[in-house]
Amino acid sequence: MTFVPYKIDHLGLAVSSIEETLPLYANVIGLKVIHEEIIDDQMVRAVFLEVGESCVELLEPTSPESPIAKYIEKKGPGIHHVAYAVEDVQAALDHAQAQGLRLIDKQPRRGGHGKLIGFVHPKDTHGVLTEFCQKIEETEEK
Amino acid sequence: MTFVPYKIDHLGLAVSSIEETLPLYANVIGLKVIHEEIIDDQMVRAVFLEVGESCVELLEPTSPESPIAKYIEKKGPGIHHVAYAVEDVQAALDHAQAQGLRLIDKQPRRGGHGKLIGFVHPKDTHGVLTEFCQKIEETEEK
Repeated sequence: MTFVPYKIDHLGLAVSSIEETLPLYANVIGLKVIHEEIIDDQMVRAVFLEVGESCVELLEPTSPESPIAKYIEKKGPGIHHVAYAVEDVQAALDHAQAQGLRLIDKQPRRGGHGKLIGFVHPKDTHGVLTEFCQKIEETEEK
Repeated sequence: MTFVPYKIDHLGLAVSSIEETLPLYANVIGLKVIHEEIIDDQMVRAVFLEVGESCVELLEPTSPESPIAKYIEKKGPGIHHVAYAVEDVQAALDHAQAQGLRLIDKQPRRGGHGKLIGFVHPKDTHGVLTEFCQKIEETEEK
């Protein structure tokens, strides 16, 4: 079924500063940076580190108006969301809605790292901000 | 290197009630339950659902004294910790400590699902409670 996740795509971490956080993930834990970009839509700078079939995504706000800045202000830095990889993100959102969940995104939108993404409302996921995502293009890995 | 994570082993979610949360993960998101147990040491009931090479671990306190009960009381239900699979958890803890991180566990201890586990102190991981774990025995999957 195209809506069932086949892996954890990434774990999004809200960080105050990538410069201060990256040494922990790259040097101490030992993960490899595979991608970075500015996601204008979310007002964040994102760095992706690979771990097995998944990534850790460090998210640093580029503006005080960024949802990540607001999250950090309210809760402090920490695990912001989990993203599940699905074959068809629209199907996953439609299925979640049909099962009674409220959605942040009724239609998928463009996320970072060459993905189509959509979020379920955390009020219906027991406090866990949950994203579905689908790869739509190859990104240049470094 | 035996201390470098080769995958996300599991994502630990603090939940008030597995009964109320499981339908979301099993029916809506569509993950498969592969293991459940009571972890006396942590005063939790744990249910593991498989997603790719990783698991989502639902953690329900069995006592108000459980660290998970205290977490929920303070922060509400949500993503409690991330666990990275390593070949040698003692090596991972030693490496983290040598790099200047404080540890919750200086020696590995027995966790759920047939694993040896150890936690780094969240004060040194930018708010992310981080566990290393190592498989030590086959558990009976259902």
